[in-house]
Amino acid sequence: MPNLSPHIQLEGLNADSREFGLIIEMMGRLKACLLDGTTPGAEFTGWLRLPAEMEPTLDRIAGMGRRIAAESATLVVVGIGGSYLGARAAYEALGRGLDGVELQWAGWSLSPVMARRLVEALDGRDYMINVISKSGGTMEPALAFRILAQHAQTRYGDAWTERVVVTTDPAQGALRLWAQDRGVETMDIPSTVGGRFSVLSPVGLLPLAAAGIDVRALVSGAGDVQRGAESASAEDDPAVIYAAARCVMEQRGRCVEVLTLPGPELSLFGEWWRQLAGESEGKNGAGIWPSVLTLTTDLHSIGQYLQDGRRMIQETFLAFEEYDAEPVIPRSGPVADGLDLVGGRALGLVNRLALEGTRDAHRAGDVPGTSITAHRLDPFCLGQLFYVFELAVALTALFHGVNPFDQPGVEAYKKGVRAKLNSL
Amino acid sequence: MPNLSPHIQLEGLNADSREFGLIIEMMGRLKACLLDGTTPGAEFTGWLRLPAEMEPTLDRIAGMGRRIAAESATLVVVGIGGSYLGARAAYEALGRGLDGVELQWAGWSLSPVMARRLVEALDGRDYMINVISKSGGTMEPALAFRILAQHAQTRYGDAWTERVVVTTDPAQGALRLWAQDRGVETMDIPSTVGGRFSVLSPVGLLPLAAAGIDVRALVSGAGDVQRGAESASAEDDPAVIYAAARCVMEQRGRCVEVLTLPGPELSLFGEWWRQLAGESEGKNGAGIWPSVLTLTTDLHSIGQYLQDGRRMIQETFLAFEEYDAEPVIPRSGPVADGLDLVGGRALGLVNRLALEGTRDAHRAGDVPGTSITAHRLDPFCLGQLFYVFELAVALTALFHGVNPFDQPGVEAYKKGVRAKLNSL
Repeated sequence: MPNLSPHIQLEGLNADSREFGLIIEMMGRLKACLLDGTTPGAEFTGWLRLPAEMEPTLDRIAGMGRRIAAESATLVVVGIGGSYLGARAAYEALGRGLDGVELQWAGWSLSPVMARRLVEALDGRDYMINVISKSGGTMEPALAFRILAQHAQTRYGDAWTERVVVTTDPAQGALRLWAQDRGVETMDIPSTVGGRFSVLSPVGLLPLAAAGIDVRALVSGAGDVQRGAESASAEDDPAVIYAAARCVMEQRGRCVEVLTLPGPELSLFGEWWRQLAGESEGKNGAGIWPSVLTLTTDLHSIGQYLQDGRRMIQETFLAFEEYDAEPVIPRSGPVADGLDLVGGRALGLVNRLALEGTRDAHRAGDVPGTSITAHRLDPFCLGQLFYVFELAVALTALFHGVNPFDQPGVEAYKKGVRAKLNSL
Repeated sequence: MPNLSPHIQLEGLNADSREFGLIIEMMGRLKACLLDGTTPGAEFTGWLRLPAEMEPTLDRIAGMGRRIAAESATLVVVGIGGSYLGARAAYEALGRGLDGVELQWAGWSLSPVMARRLVEALDGRDYMINVISKSGGTMEPALAFRILAQHAQTRYGDAWTERVVVTTDPAQGALRLWAQDRGVETMDIPSTVGGRFSVLSPVGLLPLAAAGIDVRALVSGAGDVQRGAESASAEDDPAVIYAAARCVMEQRGRCVEVLTLPGPELSLFGEWWRQLAGESEGKNGAGIWPSVLTLTTDLHSIGQYLQDGRRMIQETFLAFEEYDAEPVIPRSGPVADGLDLVGGRALGLVNRLALEGTRDAHRAGDVPGTSITAHRLDPFCLGQLFYVFELAVALTALFHGVNPFDQPGVEAYKKGVRAKLNSL
């Protein structure tokens, strides 16, 4: 049986209100413009067609992934922001596949502590490096690559460049030039795809292929949602409904959105979404502030605030229909914990019930929102979810009247840092 | 030279305004009441005196830590919320010490994926278990303990209970009863200390001691701030100034606080703070929503929102005066990255300058806030920071007129989940 498409349910919101209907209609029109390439930032909407466009490249990506796995135990992914969050989200959620390499992450901070821990982790392990940067000039990955290049040269001698794959702009930038010059293997980042929308390009797919994850299924899941988005009417499109619900709630003062995830294996998916939403929508003095709640740990943390704090929160539950059969909770335990009623049940069932109970409690506690439910946690469904959230965030930003695909505010920080460095 | 105490600096806020002076004065009075035990929730202010009260117990904790490290490679810490976040924050920030065990974390979610990964990680490693729960009846750690007890019994036979240390209420609860009955080693959680204020009790100290971290220095740092708080006038107390600044900014519409951390090794410190603040303050329809920004990765993520989004954010920078000398950035790299000006410099210096440049950019971009600067990232200074943030959060909640030490909203979720489980 094929995987089902994600579906969406409103929680504490009236779908039949005139206000909601109007916004759905408006979102439907924005979607048509987005697909037609007639919105602001249309030159960066190549991500919409990635599922079909990656198809011919998947064999090469899978082959390169196998080669990396054959020659190394670890792949060090060097990238920041959109250049690592999507791959890391999928890797954490799905785990390393059979015969896949372990992934390590570099260049996503300037922390000397993290840099030292990474180098220690590489001791005695054969590794390869995938350096990912569209421009080739972003500071964090560039500095990490200096440190790693030195390490690799010491370890592997002049042949170290054979252990590098560069993922960068097809035509320009410092990394492209270097790779051409040294005959280093490269993958292209399509010039019409921005960092935070790039997980289904070689940026995300190559590390995941090396880790033994089924990237064909991932892309196929995204393609499933793409086809649905192209054909479905607005009121049947989960991305449209989600975007409309977010905007309705924001208009009612719910300016903070909490994405509630079913388990810590999805925390990095939350970080991916936080970048996608925050950087696409946080412009022109507006936007919904994105925050993440991980079940059930954060119920013993910010859960109190949701239930009882300032009424400015809207909540989006991410759920899966199927749950894992293993492990099973032992029928009895050493301690009189009062939990015999769940003995013999799958822990995943209890986790599901905890999500449902939380949803009931938050709805009763006046936290409106939506639930997005996918079939199960596998590459196909994760590909679906990447695409649903990308589409919904683009629509939300367009509804706010901003370009979803630029990031003018990031330049301000880069300028501030550059001024400090120049004072050295 | 001894470590210096943390100091605080206002960013884009006028310290001389009458409004600010009044709130400082008010906070000073609240602090006096808190220390006198005359505020709401005074029965849960034992954390204020933990540094002095832990002193006589430190030898026993350190000894038990050494025994754990001698008999096992891994200590599995079973706990959720305040029962694990403080220890995990310190462990991630400081790293495992010489001759310390690796720490693994269980019972902080109901995720079957995380449960399976944990059991895989234990394969072939000798381990001990520290189960931490005040009541002994919290669902997540109780279910994790059932699974681990089964695993340990299979691995170690009936002697498995010799590999368990229970940290719980001194007198009551299911775990206390079981430990008494089976002669299992125990540590006490003082009954006047709530979970999110317990990191400087055996809850946090035992796992950290086992991991080879200097818990005496940690407690001593907290004691340094405690003595300062008892003697300093309000306008010289960093916790008072921080609490006052937060409340002034909130009154001006800055209802979301971003705690900006210098590197990913402090992300878990951010999670610890998010629980501390969210659960203490998010009550009665009020409170500041806590969010975390990790440098520099999140500048390529929600940094855009801070700079350009809705003007509802206040920002708190956590910084350290000293930075690590290693690693040094190689003077040249393979790629023409335009970064030769930082070649030969410590990566930690560039990280510091990135923080300063970001602070300048955010201040210029109308994000007001504070900087809290500690001497360096070590156990003593981390102990100082735990205490400063605990005190500041308690004062903020009291200023809002709520009890900082209860969590009525958490009960709503527990009730919702219980209803679902009863329907099984």
